[in-house]
Amino acid sequence: MSLIAASLDAFATPRHGHHRRADQGLQLELMSDMLDTRGSWLSEDDLSLARERLPMVYVDALPVRVNALGEITAIGLLLRGRHDGSLSRAVVSGRVLYGELLRHALLRHIEKDLGTMALPRIPSSIVPFTVAEYFPDPEVTGFVDSRQHAVSLCYIVACDGDCVPSQDALDLAWVTPQEALSYTFQAEMTGGQGRLVRLALAHCGYLD
Amino acid sequence: MSLIAASLDAFATPRHGHHRRADQGLQLELMSDMLDTRGSWLSEDDLSLARERLPMVYVDALPVRVNALGEITAIGLLLRGRHDGSLSRAVVSGRVLYGELLRHALLRHIEKDLGTMALPRIPSSIVPFTVAEYFPDPEVTGFVDSRQHAVSLCYIVACDGDCVPSQDALDLAWVTPQEALSYTFQAEMTGGQGRLVRLALAHCGYLD
Amino acid sequence: MSLIAASLDAFATPRHGHHRRADQGLQLELMSDMLDTRGSWLSEDDLSLARERLPMVYVDALPVRVNALGEITAIGLLLRGRHDGSLSRAVVSGRVLYGELLRHALLRHIEKDLGTMALPRIPSSIVPFTVAEYFPDPEVTGFVDSRQHAVSLCYIVACDGDCVPSQDALDLAWVTPQEALSYTFQAEMTGGQGRLVRLALAHCGYLD
Amino acid sequence: MSLIAASLDAFATPRHGHHRRADQGLQLELMSDMLDTRGSWLSEDDLSLARERLPMVYVDALPVRVNALGEITAIGLLLRGRHDGSLSRAVVSGRVLYGELLRHALLRHIEKDLGTMALPRIPSSIVPFTVAEYFPDPEVTGFVDSRQHAVSLCYIVACDGDCVPSQDALDLAWVTPQEALSYTFQAEMTGGQGRLVRLALAHCGYLD
Repeated sequence: MSLIAASLDAFATPRHGHHRRADQGLQLELMSDMLDTRGSWLSEDDLSLARERLPMVYVDALPVRVNALGEITAIGLLLRGRHDGSLSRAVVSGRVLYGELLRHALLRHIEKDLGTMALPRIPSSIVPFTVAEYFPDPEVTGFVDSRQHAVSLCYIVACDGDCVPSQDALDLAWVTPQEALSYTFQAEMTGGQGRLVRLALAHCGYLD
Repeated sequence: MSLIAASLDAFATPRHGHHRRADQGLQLELMSDMLDTRGSWLSEDDLSLARERLPMVYVDALPVRVNALGEITAIGLLLRGRHDGSLSRAVVSGRVLYGELLRHALLRHIEKDLGTMALPRIPSSIVPFTVAEYFPDPEVTGFVDSRQHAVSLCYIVACDGDCVPSQDALDLAWVTPQEALSYTFQAEMTGGQGRLVRLALAHCGYLD
Repeated sequence: MSLIAASLDAFATPRHGHHRRADQGLQLELMSDMLDTRGSWLSEDDLSLARERLPMVYVDALPVRVNALGEITAIGLLLRGRHDGSLSRAVVSGRVLYGELLRHALLRHIEKDLGTMALPRIPSSIVPFTVAEYFPDPEVTGFVDSRQHAVSLCYIVACDGDCVPSQDALDLAWVTPQEALSYTFQAEMTGGQGRLVRLALAHCGYLD
Repeated sequence: MSLIAASLDAFATPRHGHHRRADQGLQLELMSDMLDTRGSWLSEDDLSLARERLPMVYVDALPVRVNALGEITAIGLLLRGRHDGSLSRAVVSGRVLYGELLRHALLRHIEKDLGTMALPRIPSSIVPFTVAEYFPDPEVTGFVDSRQHAVSLCYIVACDGDCVPSQDALDLAWVTPQEALSYTFQAEMTGGQGRLVRLALAHCGYLD
C-alpha cells in the first residue's frame, strides 16, 4: 500500500450505504462509534494536506423546536471552540464520509452534537434550504472555515426530544427566533454562523 | 346589505389570524367546527357562481409516514367521491378561507380529513414543493377540478399519530412509495391526483 | 343573469389556458389590454365586497439584473402609490385572473409594470421562492394590503431588456443588492415590501 | 514536498474565488484552460486513490431551451462515453475544484461541454432542484459513477445561445420534454441520467 493510499485510507468508511433502510437504534450508534474511531486514525498533517486540495462535502443543521403549526418557537445554538481558537455560537455541522448518504451524515452529526435522544425529524427531501460555501478566506463568501474549502448542504431540523450538548460543544442554548436575530446573539456567531441562522429564518418567513 | 354582500358573506370567516401563535387544542377544533358550520350556510348556487369567476386558494397535503432518516415508508391515500361522481384515491385538499393563514388551513384540513390525532408535522417553511393549478378543463394542466379554477400550494406532511379517515372520505390506505407509483394505484387516482403523488415522491428523490 | 353573477362577471376572463404554449407577442398584448378593460368594468364597491370575503391569488415579481454567473447586480424597484395613499418602493405585483395560468399572470404583470421590452426570464419552475400572505391588518404577517387578504406567490425574475415604468408606477430605480438592503431604501419600502426584497436576496445568498 | 502533497496538488487550483464578480470573457476561458491543463497532470492512479476515500463535490446541469413563458421547449442531451465503456445520453456534469465557487464550476462545465457561445442563464439562487448522490454501486441510490462517490448539486439551466458539443461529447441532441420522457430516450440514459432528467422535468411540472 502506497503512502498516499495509507494516508487517504483514514478518510474511508465501511460501505454502509446498503444499510440505509435498516432500522437504526443500535446499528447506527455502532457505526457512528466505528466511524469516529477510524477518524481518529487520521494524522493532523494528512488531514490538513487533503483539506488544502479538495473541497469537502459537509452538512449543516439548524436544530429548532416547532409548535403544532410548524412555526419555529426556539432555535438550538451550540457554543463551541472554533478552529481559530475563538468561541462561537454555532449550528450542528460535520463532514460527509466516503460512502455515506447525506441522510445518514445528517442524523449522525445531530446525534453526535445533541445526543441520541434528540429525536430529529430528518426532512423527507434532501434538497437543502441553502448551500453554504466555506472558505479559509473570509472575503470570498462570508462563510469561514480556517481549515478548508467546504460545500455544506444546510437543513432546518425540528427536534422533538431531549437535546444534550455532547463532545466538543460547551453549551446548548435555546433561543427564540427574535433573540437569534438580535444583535447580542448575532455578535456571538462568527464565521458566517449568524448569517446562516438568518438565512434559515428567512426561509421560514422570519426576518428582523 | 346587498345581495352580493350576503352571498359572499358565506365565504367569510372570523378573523383568526391574530391567534396564529396560540396553542391549538380546543381552540382550533372549535374554530374548525365554526368554519364548517358557516360553510354549510352557503347555497350551492352562490358557491358555484363565485367559483366561476375567481381562482380559489387551496392547500394540498400528501400525508406520509417517515422513518428516523426521514425516508418515506408509506403514503396515506384517501378514497373519496369526486365532484364528477367518480371515486378516486386522493390527497388531503381544501380551501383557504378569508383571513386564514396557510398554516392554519393546512392543519385544519389535515385534521378534518385524518382526525385530530394525526399529529401532522406542519413544515417550518410554507414554500410548497409544487403548485398545482386545477381547472375544469382537463387539457389545461392535467390537474382537474370540475367545479373551479384553484391554485393549490402542495405540501408533504409527515404524520406521527393515528390517522382516521373522516367526513367525506370512504377509506384511508397506507401504501409504500413503490405501490403508490404502481400502475394499479396510479389508475385509481384520477384528475391529476396520481401525478401529484408522483411529483411529491420525485421531490423526495423517489421515481419509478 | 343575477346581480351576483353580473358583479362577479367582472372578474372573469376568457379562457386562455389553451393558448398557453402559443407564441406571445401580439396575442398576449391584446389579451392584456382586454383584461385591463374588463377590469375597469368592475365597480369599486363590488370589488371591495369580494375582496372582503375571499383570499385573492397574487403573483409578486422582483425584477433583477444578473451577470453571466447569475449573480444579482441590480434590483428594480418601482415607486408607486399605495392604496392607503402613501408612496412606496415596491416590486411588481398583481392578481391572477380566473382561468389564467400563473406563468401568464407573471408575464402579464411584468409587461404591464415594466413594458413589453423588459424581456423577463420567467422561471422554468413555478415553485415560488416564498409565499407572502397579505392582510389588511399589519400585525398578522407584516405583509400589508389595506384592500384584501391576498396569497402571493413570489418570484425573482431576471430581465434582460429595457424596463420602462408604466401605468401606475411613478418611477423605476435600479439599485445594487447592498443599496436595497440599506436603511435608506428599506425605509422607503412599506407594507412588507422591504422584507420581501430581503427575503428574495436571502434566497440568493445575499444578506446584510 | 511529500508524496501525498504532490499527489493531491494535482487537485488544487489557484484561488480564483476573489475574481467571482469579475466580468468573464477571456479571463474565465483562460482559467478553464489552465484548470484543464492542471487536471491532466494528475496520474490516473492517484486520482483513483483519492476518489476511493473522499466524496467529490459535483455540479450537474440540464441544459434547456425555454419560451417567453419560461416553459421548457427542448432539453439538451449529450452523448458521451461512460467510464464503464458504454455510451449514454447525459447531462452536463463535472467536479468542483478546490477554491472554486459553485457558480464558477457550473459556468465552466457548461462552457466546456456546450461551448463558449451557449449563453447559459446561471440561476440567481444556488439552491439545487435536487441533489444526486452517485456511488459505484448501482443499488445504493440508482445514480451510478463507477469511479467514485460524488455528491452532485443539480440545476436546470436555460441556454439562449449556440450550443456545440465539445471535448468528450460525441453529440448533442435537443429533444422535447415528451421525447426525453419517452422509453426510447430513457433507455439511452444509463446510470441514473434518465431519472435525473425526469426529476428535473417533474420539478418544472412535467411528468409523463
